[in-house]
Amino acid sequence: MSTPEKTEAVAGTRERIVRATSRLLQRQGYEGTGIKQISREAGATLGSVYHFFPGGKQELAAEAIRHGDEEFAVILRAGLASAEGPAEAVAACTALLARELRASDWQDGCPVITTALETVGRAPVIEEAVAEAFAHWRAIVAEHLHASGIAPEDAADLAATVINALEGAELSAQVARSEEPLHLAGRHLARLISTYAA
Amino acid sequence: MSTPEKTEAVAGTRERIVRATSRLLQRQGYEGTGIKQISREAGATLGSVYHFFPGGKQELAAEAIRHGDEEFAVILRAGLASAEGPAEAVAACTALLARELRASDWQDGCPVITTALETVGRAPVIEEAVAEAFAHWRAIVAEHLHASGIAPEDAADLAATVINALEGAELSAQVARSEEPLHLAGRHLARLISTYAA
Repeated sequence: MSTPEKTEAVAGTRERIVRATSRLLQRQGYEGTGIKQISREAGATLGSVYHFFPGGKQELAAEAIRHGDEEFAVILRAGLASAEGPAEAVAACTALLARELRASDWQDGCPVITTALETVGRAPVIEEAVAEAFAHWRAIVAEHLHASGIAPEDAADLAATVINALEGAELSAQVARSEEPLHLAGRHLARLISTYAA
Repeated sequence: MSTPEKTEAVAGTRERIVRATSRLLQRQGYEGTGIKQISREAGATLGSVYHFFPGGKQELAAEAIRHGDEEFAVILRAGLASAEGPAEAVAACTALLARELRASDWQDGCPVITTALETVGRAPVIEEAVAEAFAHWRAIVAEHLHASGIAPEDAADLAATVINALEGAELSAQVARSEEPLHLAGRHLARLISTYAA
């Protein structure tokens, strides 16, 4: 194997391990996911999992959360860009999330929340990745709201409530196996935002 | 031992098992909690855990979720009753939750959400208990909002958003180890509710 091909294959293995971990954490949480299952799902040997992640499951989970962070950021940006006006843009996000959640048969909710809840106060490296993910998502929404004419401090506060409401509504949608909690969150967030935009 | 005393001791053991399970699920989730740890924490033998819960961990978790359901309902009712007006009442709930969460060193968040997320699509008896808990909490809030003069269908919709927002804000508060996400949720929910109450 020539060097560029080898580099690509190595990058491919690491990437497969991170993706498999992210999906497993999203669907069954941190405690229910073992390194052996990750290696199986990623089509990688246990040896290569520990080669790339010598810190084991915590290091792997932190990296998977950074992957989930970027995955959710892509959805947020796509949703926000798909409608005119700040209230409509946030409602478009909830509609997009509802479609994606239904398409996964209500399995693929927030990629970080289950792991975050399972490890509160018990895994600093994971907690840091979770806190960064939340901060990143809030920043994306805050920037969009501010660019739509809402004052910076109001935009930052609203962004925090938008992300928290999306988390709560997504959980409810999963429990109810219904898009309605997300659509309702969209309507109420739009109504709240329009009291600032007006 | 006379019969009434025996009945009381039996009720006491079952209650201790349910309480211990509820606390463990709240703090470390379903997957991270084993029957042996439950028996140890409850001060009950493994034999008596299986005597009361022949269905094992799933049956025990469902019962613990019903316990958490009632526990959270008590907090909701106390919060709602502590202030005049529907918007102020919901904000009082978020303040009460923030205080309780801080007092537990950010450990004791929602008593059902972690288990709910870990078992989506995989444990019908647990999912049913989770769905009932959410419905119960929404009903408490909806009834209070309606009694404060908000139209029934608006009260029901707002109640769903209140519960979802509390869930999301409580998670954020745990991650950030800060009361602020809950206080912010209180301000925004009050603002949203006042657009209906006016």
